[in-house]
Amino acid sequence: MMATMCADETATRLAERVLALAGGATGAAGIEVVLAEPGRVHLSIGRRDDLVQFKGYFHGGVISGLADLAAGGAVTTTLPPGRAVVSISLHVNFLAPARGERLVAKGSVVKVGGTVGVASVDVVTIEADRELLCATATVTFRVVGAATNN
Amino acid sequence: MMATMCADETATRLAERVLALAGGATGAAGIEVVLAEPGRVHLSIGRRDDLVQFKGYFHGGVISGLADLAAGGAVTTTLPPGRAVVSISLHVNFLAPARGERLVAKGSVVKVGGTVGVASVDVVTIEADRELLCATATVTFRVVGAATNN
Amino acid sequence: MMATMCADETATRLAERVLALAGGATGAAGIEVVLAEPGRVHLSIGRRDDLVQFKGYFHGGVISGLADLAAGGAVTTTLPPGRAVVSISLHVNFLAPARGERLVAKGSVVKVGGTVGVASVDVVTIEADRELLCATATVTFRVVGAATNN
Amino acid sequence: MMATMCADETATRLAERVLALAGGATGAAGIEVVLAEPGRVHLSIGRRDDLVQFKGYFHGGVISGLADLAAGGAVTTTLPPGRAVVSISLHVNFLAPARGERLVAKGSVVKVGGTVGVASVDVVTIEADRELLCATATVTFRVVGAATNN
Repeated sequence: MMATMCADETATRLAERVLALAGGATGAAGIEVVLAEPGRVHLSIGRRDDLVQFKGYFHGGVISGLADLAAGGAVTTTLPPGRAVVSISLHVNFLAPARGERLVAKGSVVKVGGTVGVASVDVVTIEADRELLCATATVTFRVVGAATNN
Repeated sequence: MMATMCADETATRLAERVLALAGGATGAAGIEVVLAEPGRVHLSIGRRDDLVQFKGYFHGGVISGLADLAAGGAVTTTLPPGRAVVSISLHVNFLAPARGERLVAKGSVVKVGGTVGVASVDVVTIEADRELLCATATVTFRVVGAATNN
Repeated sequence: MMATMCADETATRLAERVLALAGGATGAAGIEVVLAEPGRVHLSIGRRDDLVQFKGYFHGGVISGLADLAAGGAVTTTLPPGRAVVSISLHVNFLAPARGERLVAKGSVVKVGGTVGVASVDVVTIEADRELLCATATVTFRVVGAATNN
Repeated sequence: MMATMCADETATRLAERVLALAGGATGAAGIEVVLAEPGRVHLSIGRRDDLVQFKGYFHGGVISGLADLAAGGAVTTTLPPGRAVVSISLHVNFLAPARGERLVAKGSVVKVGGTVGVASVDVVTIEADRELLCATATVTFRVVGAATNN
């Protein structure tokens, strides 16, 4: 549907803008927008030596950071122009070792109000084309003017 | 006191071992053990381009990851030999923008039992020699045999 | 299907047993098992003066407590006989005022392992036959022998 | 010091007002303000049949609810007149069975800003005059005009 396609294009652009802001010089290098539509953003990052611990599993910080970005992207897709989000709190449950070649964080809006937004995230690893749920997260955001976003 | 010094030396070595395990090839490169004693581990990392977002603040994932490691280190210092920890859940409150030259995560044990351990963390940034609290975290761990640690 | 019916009957009985244990003399009085099947338990409680605050909304403690029980029930339905759960941590997001005549907590298993189980919960209020999501929760449990359950 | 006494009296009155609002008809009946000063509120409730589960331990919902109120009271003591709080999220770690005659939730402000406040809580039980830490909590609040408090 045309309207939806437009919305999706906007969502993708928004998600890429969120990533660009997150990125700094190189911080979010390698993160890809897998899906972006109103209320949902999926982000993915491939395995790299600096993202894994001694057993080769993705770090807890990488899982948490990718979940935070996917959640923030999902909420941002539902905001009017000129509004942005700042993370207030992040809750992550680690469910299984994050082994595999790729990590995907699938963020979905739970609720967005005038000043607070909440999104949930399923984080999966991909190993030999199979998805395994390795973590779930809930992230709570403050909705702010884009200019005051810190 | 001699006994305490020994205990602290052991704690420092343990904390360094926890970091080494966390590190993989380069993942925890640059993280320093600032303090390690029974029940408490403080870890620090300096500002790097790949650790900050577009405004120059440390990423939420970096804050979360450093908190996770400091909490795990703190719990590990209280365990008998051969026991290790695996993160079950992580809760972070982001309180202020993490600007500054250095990030320090100060982990303290709240309680350790036979199968579960909990630690709390104050995360501060250091800017012009002033500490500013930028996040607090609570991390819950499963206590496991070191050999089964994943 | 017969097998499913049996499974559901077992789940219902389990959920009722979980509630009975939770109840003490009168603590869980009035809580009803709305649905119980492997991996899912829905619990409901009607509005009472001692469950609401000055505006007539259900208390945060009531929402949290009902979510905890529904999550514990959901995990318990997936355990082998003789195993039970103890809550380790509870994370609740309050999304809207819990007004209405009835509160329903819908618990679903996220993952259950040998020593840890996680369930998520949607808490809705029912007002004039309409459901409104008022809270979501994630509860983490330790799996224990039923005899050592505390 | 006189000024502090006044401040404390104000804090106590505020804490009692928070409780009164929380109370509805009978919901917070029996909760006592043990301590109230700027940034800290301690609330206590005695053991009652409707507050305990089958083993006689205080319910998770009672622990969570008392922690929520103590945290909200602590943040409220630091707000200017006409401002109030609404809970956004609640994170509780259950550390030990809540046995004993009395439950005390000790709330302390972590940080209060213009739109968000965070408080941490230690929940102890009192048994034969000994305090035992049974839970810790972190509660995140939205700061609102008192008139819009829901």
